[in-house]
Order: sequence, then C-alpha cells, then structure tokens
Amino acid sequence: MAGIDLNADLGEGFGVWRLGDDDAMLRIVSSANVACGLHAGDPAGLSRVCRSAAERGVRIGAQVSYRDLAGFGRRFIDVEADDLVSDVVYQIGALQAIARACGSEVSYVKPHGALYNTIVTHREQAAAVARAVHLVDPALPVLGIAGSAFFDEAARLGLRTVAEAFADRAYRPDGTLVPRREPGALLDDPAAIAERVWTMVTSGRVTAIDGTEIAVSVESVCVHGDSPGAVQIATAVRDRLTVAGAEIRAFC
Amino acid sequence: MAGIDLNADLGEGFGVWRLGDDDAMLRIVSSANVACGLHAGDPAGLSRVCRSAAERGVRIGAQVSYRDLAGFGRRFIDVEADDLVSDVVYQIGALQAIARACGSEVSYVKPHGALYNTIVTHREQAAAVARAVHLVDPALPVLGIAGSAFFDEAARLGLRTVAEAFADRAYRPDGTLVPRREPGALLDDPAAIAERVWTMVTSGRVTAIDGTEIAVSVESVCVHGDSPGAVQIATAVRDRLTVAGAEIRAFC
Amino acid sequence: MAGIDLNADLGEGFGVWRLGDDDAMLRIVSSANVACGLHAGDPAGLSRVCRSAAERGVRIGAQVSYRDLAGFGRRFIDVEADDLVSDVVYQIGALQAIARACGSEVSYVKPHGALYNTIVTHREQAAAVARAVHLVDPALPVLGIAGSAFFDEAARLGLRTVAEAFADRAYRPDGTLVPRREPGALLDDPAAIAERVWTMVTSGRVTAIDGTEIAVSVESVCVHGDSPGAVQIATAVRDRLTVAGAEIRAFC
Amino acid sequence: MAGIDLNADLGEGFGVWRLGDDDAMLRIVSSANVACGLHAGDPAGLSRVCRSAAERGVRIGAQVSYRDLAGFGRRFIDVEADDLVSDVVYQIGALQAIARACGSEVSYVKPHGALYNTIVTHREQAAAVARAVHLVDPALPVLGIAGSAFFDEAARLGLRTVAEAFADRAYRPDGTLVPRREPGALLDDPAAIAERVWTMVTSGRVTAIDGTEIAVSVESVCVHGDSPGAVQIATAVRDRLTVAGAEIRAFC
Repeated sequence: MAGIDLNADLGEGFGVWRLGDDDAMLRIVSSANVACGLHAGDPAGLSRVCRSAAERGVRIGAQVSYRDLAGFGRRFIDVEADDLVSDVVYQIGALQAIARACGSEVSYVKPHGALYNTIVTHREQAAAVARAVHLVDPALPVLGIAGSAFFDEAARLGLRTVAEAFADRAYRPDGTLVPRREPGALLDDPAAIAERVWTMVTSGRVTAIDGTEIAVSVESVCVHGDSPGAVQIATAVRDRLTVAGAEIRAFC
Repeated sequence: MAGIDLNADLGEGFGVWRLGDDDAMLRIVSSANVACGLHAGDPAGLSRVCRSAAERGVRIGAQVSYRDLAGFGRRFIDVEADDLVSDVVYQIGALQAIARACGSEVSYVKPHGALYNTIVTHREQAAAVARAVHLVDPALPVLGIAGSAFFDEAARLGLRTVAEAFADRAYRPDGTLVPRREPGALLDDPAAIAERVWTMVTSGRVTAIDGTEIAVSVESVCVHGDSPGAVQIATAVRDRLTVAGAEIRAFC
Repeated sequence: MAGIDLNADLGEGFGVWRLGDDDAMLRIVSSANVACGLHAGDPAGLSRVCRSAAERGVRIGAQVSYRDLAGFGRRFIDVEADDLVSDVVYQIGALQAIARACGSEVSYVKPHGALYNTIVTHREQAAAVARAVHLVDPALPVLGIAGSAFFDEAARLGLRTVAEAFADRAYRPDGTLVPRREPGALLDDPAAIAERVWTMVTSGRVTAIDGTEIAVSVESVCVHGDSPGAVQIATAVRDRLTVAGAEIRAFC
Repeated sequence: MAGIDLNADLGEGFGVWRLGDDDAMLRIVSSANVACGLHAGDPAGLSRVCRSAAERGVRIGAQVSYRDLAGFGRRFIDVEADDLVSDVVYQIGALQAIARACGSEVSYVKPHGALYNTIVTHREQAAAVARAVHLVDPALPVLGIAGSAFFDEAARLGLRTVAEAFADRAYRPDGTLVPRREPGALLDDPAAIAERVWTMVTSGRVTAIDGTEIAVSVESVCVHGDSPGAVQIATAVRDRLTVAGAEIRAFC
C-alpha cells in the first residue's frame, strides 16, 4: 500500500460560531470536505479554511447539504429532485469561487449528513445530486459509500466515484452506517480505531456492529475533528498509517 | 447611436414567493441582473430565470447584495470589509454555477439595493466589492454609477466599469439617486420616462429633481419589472429606443 | 345550522414578498391562520395582518410550521420531537406578542403544510405539536383533521380539537387529502366548490376522489386566498353559506 | 450595600453550535439575558437554557437583536423603526412562551450587540425598541446604559430603566463603551476587573480609558461567559462581591 487519503469535514462553523479545530485537522488530512453555506459555513469562514487548506496543500471538496442551518443538515428533508439539483449546483459554485479566490479549487464533492445517508438508498435524491455534480463539472469525483444508490447514479453519468470508509463509525452487517442516534454508533478508543482503519485499508474488511466481518471499499478514510477527542482519534489514525509506511495523500 | 443596453433585476423571488414578471422582462432587456441568494433568489428560482435568459440570449449579471432576506437587501449593514469580500465572492460563484448549468455564464456584476447605494460613497465597502469581483475574474465588468467610489476602486484594479442610468428614478443635482423613501424618487409616466431615457442616451444629459440639467454617463439603462406598471414603463422605453433606430443589445 | 367558521392562511409573505390577498380574505373568513415566521411571515408583515384582523373582528390562529422558508414549510423534515416542541412553542409565543400588540390574541393553533400532513399519521411529531400547544396554554384549541394522530394526542392532553374540512381539496376514500402534487388534488370551479361545502356542512358527507361518499367532520371550513381564483372561490363559499342562512362566525 | 445583580448573555448558540458555558454562568449570575432567535438561539437551545435558569432561580431577560445570524447581531442595520418594533415584539413573545413552558417568565429586556450600541444615540431606533417593550408589557424593565437615548425613550413611556455597568469593557470619558474593534476595549485581568467592579458598585465611579474618573450608574453588572477566561473573570467578580458581603440577586 503506497498511499491513502484521509478526509474530514471542515469549515462547519457559521459567523461567530466555530465547530471543531480546522487548523488541527488540516495538519492531519489530505482532503477537506468544506461546508458550502446551507448547513454551515458563512463565506468569510469558508475563505479562512480554504486559504489554510491551500497553504497546506490539502485538497478541497464541496460538502453539499440540505438547506438547514438550524438542524446542521442532519435532518432528512423531502425536497423535490429539481430543487435539490439547483441547491447542489449553487453550493458547489459558491465554494468554487471561494476556493479559487484562495488560490485553490474544488476537487471533489461529498454530500453531508442526512443527505449523505438519504442518498445511500433514495434513488430520486441520489440522481439529483449526481446530476448536479455532472452539470457543474463531469470531471468532479464524488466521495461516498460503495454500493449506494448515489454511486450507481454517479457512475451512470460517468462520474468518478471514490469509496470511503469511516474511522469512528460502526457498520451494520449490510455495510451501511449505524445511525448516530443509536447506541454503539460512535467508536471512541483512538488506538482501537487506528488499528481498525489499518485493517480496513490493507484488507478491505471491517467488523460490523454484530460481529460479522464484512467487505469495505476504501479509497479514502473519513475522520472527524469536531471535538478534542476526535482530533486525537484522527491523529492516531494518521500516525498508525504513516508508521506502517503509508503515505497520506489526496485521492485526486 | 447604434446600440444601447437595457438591464433589469430578475430572479428576485424566494421559494414560493415571486417578485415581478421575469418572463415579460426577458422579452424587453438585454442584460438580466440575477439575484444570488442573499437578498433574494433560491437556487431553483435562479435556475429558472437563468434558463430563460439563456434561451433568449439575454446576458446574465450577478446581482450581489448584503445578506438580508427579510430586508430584501435594502438596508445598510455595517459589514466588515473582509466579510463583504467573501460574501460577494460566494454569491458570484453560486450564480456562475447556476448560469453554466443552464448553458450560459455570468457576464458582469451589479450590486443591489443598499449595497449599491452605499458604495457610491463608502470607500471601504466599495473597495471590498471591487476586490471580490477581481478575485473571481478580473475580466468581469461591473455595472454602476459613474463617479462613484465603487467605480474608482474597480478602475484601480483594472476592472471595466459600465455606467448606467435609471429610467424611472429621480436624480439629485450631484448625480446621485433620490432615495426611494423620499417624495418624487420614482417616476411613473411611461411616455415621459421613455422620452427622458431617449434624451439621456443621445445627449448624455438629464434633468435633476430640482430642475438642474446634469450630465449622465449611459452605457446601460436600468428598467424595473416589479409591478405591472413597471413592465409597461420598460416596454415604453424599449419601444421608444427601437422606433428611433437604436438596437437593444448587451454591453458585453 | 346556525353558524359555521371559515378559516384561511394569512400573513404568508416575507419581507418584500407577498402571498395572496390578505385584505380580501379578511372580508371573507372568521378565523385567520397567521404564519409565525418559520415558513413565512416577517414580524412587520405579521403585525399588519394581525392589526387588520383585529379591526375586522377576525380571530387569529397560530399557523405553526417546520422551519423552512425556502420550502414554505411544504417539505417533510425529520425533526426530533423535542426540537419540534420548542419550535412550536417559539412560534406561538412570537405570534401571541404580535397579536396582543395589535389588540387581539392567539385563539387557536393550526399546523401548516407538511407538518399538518405529517401529523395526521406521524405519532411522535403529532405528540410534539400537541405537547407544545399544551405547554403554551391548555385552553388553546387546535384546528385539524378528525381522526388524525394529532387529534388523538391533543385530546389525550385535554386540548379542544376542532375538525375542519377543505373547500377546494380532493379527499381520498380514507378521509385524508389527496397530496398537492397529485392530479385532481385541487378543485377549481367556484360554484361546484360552494355547493360541495354546503353539502359537507349540512350533511357531514363529501364525495372522495374515487366517487365514494365518506363522512367528514366540519366545525370549520378551510378556504384559500393565494390566487385571484382562490379569493373568488372563497367568496363563492361564503355567499353560498350566507344565502342559505348560515352565519359565518369563529368557532371560538 | 446589600444586593447587586450580575447579568450575562446566555443561550447564544444556534443548533449544533454553542457559545460560551451557559451552565457555568448560571452558577454565577442572577439575571440571564437569553437570546431570542434573531442573532442566536434556536428554540430547543433556548428551552435548555430557560429550564436551567428556572431550576437555579436565575431571572430570564429577553436579549433582543437585529435579525442577523451571520453577523451575530454585531453589525448595525439601518432597519426602519416600524419593522424594528415588530422584530422586537416578536422576539420577546417567542422567549416568553419558551420561558413559561419552562416554568419561568421573561422579567426584563436587554438589547444585544449593535442594537444595544446603536440606541445609545440613535433616537428613532431607541424609540422603536422602547415602544416594542411597552407594547408587550409596560411592566417590563429594560436593562441598558444610563444617559442613553434608549433610556430617555423608555422613561418617556413609563418603563423602568435599570442601569448596568460592564465588568470587562473599557469606558470612554463620555461614559460610552470603547467599541470592540478598538485596542484596549476588553479588559482581561480577573483580579483587576473584580476590584474595578467593586469600586463601581460601591462608589459609582470608574476610570475611563484615558485615565479620567467618571460617574457610572450601576444597578446591575454585566459579565461575559463566551470563553474560559470570561467565566474565570465572572467568577472573580462574583467572589469579590460576595466576600465583601454583597448578595448577588436579581434587580427584579
């Protein structure tokens, strides 16, 4: 194994509010999923994180979401497909301009929160997000879960799909994530998580919440930075991988 | 006189709410100042108007604003310059993606409402808007009032400045607009307005609210479409110009 | 039959945007479901409509909604029950203060749009809305559909439930409304609608979309005012009822 | 000196975002200025802080603001007086319902941020805020700066005005605060601040930024809680006062 991508959500504050430690995470990851303003991310805050990412050579992805500041994009919204297409195009474009003004660019797209989870199975919304990405730039890869409706629809349009695994989220036997609200959804031991990531990356397998061993596609590993503990976990993951000789580098 | 540009504000609804008759105005103007989401314009609505503009060959401009849906961008906000730069970059980028997805592009930038009025004299905000446009694309022209701080700052950065006159707004003797809240600010007789525009376009002069005749630079004429009366006025202006042999065409 | 209530949604503009003809509707209805700011209704606009309602003796109800300006509250949001309780309490309180400042008060609560439809069956959200109303004032009646989960939950808390019928919406055989997006959902012939309302009010029966005749509880009739056609329909309904000797009066 | 009130801004998060340590501050202050949703404060978050305040016997005040989530209410907005009246009525009412649902009530009103600063001198907006409070409840006291236009207008309507001093903000010789953006605006030494508060409270005098000693009216002392340092300062102030035998108690 020569290289592996680490991605994390960044720029998820809004105005005076901050979430997570963007600076710490930019020293850890190779790809930054930057909010685009609809679930988080005021333009000035997005500029700050894009500038830092550009300085550190971290790739910028557009983290597109439902329009829901109060719910941080974590609530399913039954938005019509045409509206969703436009919402996603709008968000990518807004971040493209911010990223370019900071000397970088948007290199990929990753859906956020409830939208991410919804389009694992919701065909209409999955097609809408894929269509939006394609409308903006058919060369933009999308980050998501292998086997999802979203990847089907993206592939159908010729988009490159990049499969990610989650460092600190439990898996169900069917390969989907255990919802955040359920017990056991979040892992919290840095060493165990780091070892689990190493296993996923090298063997393509992970142990699901019921003990089953399942296959998992990993072109990128998602880590979190929204708490001091999360940063510690992300550091442990990075260290485990680099100690073993892997290079942390963007997939694109 | 061979050609003159007519511009109007479009796409200024939000969600279920509509403002003005976009379709009617797209048959009249050559340049559409399309809202970008911060004072008006949900992404789906912006897509609709951009698609129509593209079909009719009407140029699309980014109508950038303060972030103020409740006030429709008509209230001065004492936003810091750096924040304003990012807000404007964000808006232009968002509309660029929407316009491109509709087969067109953003061809110019025009500030909206209170921002427009403020940067006639507010040096810091004027510089911020100019800087934002320049960051996005130094080739983007800006639409505004000749002699404004905004034009100074835009010219300093090498941006092309395009001077517009207002068909239905009264002028003060110093060439600025009479504020909307003051009596006499809005003209309403279609024939008189059309004749006044013809005079402005051909002679470069207009009669101010106090009777003084003043010089006015006109590379584009701004008309409105936010009421049935406004559409009638815009039609009268277009007819007066075309009857006299002028071609209505975009400045860019 | 001595008296019947007519209710309509009002105050559903936002800032510069207006929706429907509030003044016309205030001459027709006895109860005004006034928006509360989360799907529509800026405070100044709410004050205008509450002042007019107070002057005309029209009762004011709080039309509570999901937080969704862009979607006008017409999209299901998977909000957690505790959050929904607070959202609804917040909305009722805001409108109470506005109504009182206008010399009136909030006399009942009616959920709006997708929230209305959702809590016909969604037990958790239904209980949340009922709980919110009860927290604000156990004496506040709720307007809704007989047989709904919402009415169950409201009754369980001792709230008065007031069953409404819809003048211009088609019914399914099970007594629920045909969703707006489906064909035949909206009726549009004023005379037929007026006659149908008369039948519903006097017989407690209505013909569903499949031709079945079903029972319908009617303590109030919902009419709309969001288009010139809608105002005409509402007028026809009012005229049909008053000609027959019914008095249009608030249920509370 | 028997008693003195300590007040602090609370409930200033929004959705997933938190600001400051509300729980820590509720152990320090006697009056909580709770956000009302327009500059901060989603309803669920407001419920949490109101419930905690009720449990601890801390008074709740409505911290009313310009509508500006992105700017946290810290930017002057040139809102028209009538709109501002409605915005303030709306906010107070919303928080009243939340507070009551938590077993407490809104006991006073304190403007926030740029609105607070603006109505020290802006007569029209000062009158609008005073009028709004009076419309909601003429018995509601207002918290602010002695000698301000706001206090003039409030007194003219018969509202009780409660003068506050600021523990950690520098004063100009004219008794106004040094703006946040200017150097020296914020004091940061807990012991020095605590001593300064003690002097203000007992002598009614404070040393301005230029060394001048000026008079200051103190019925309440404002402390902050938006950083670990701020909580430490607030604790020092409370300890200094109680050690000296003062009782920390709400002014109302």
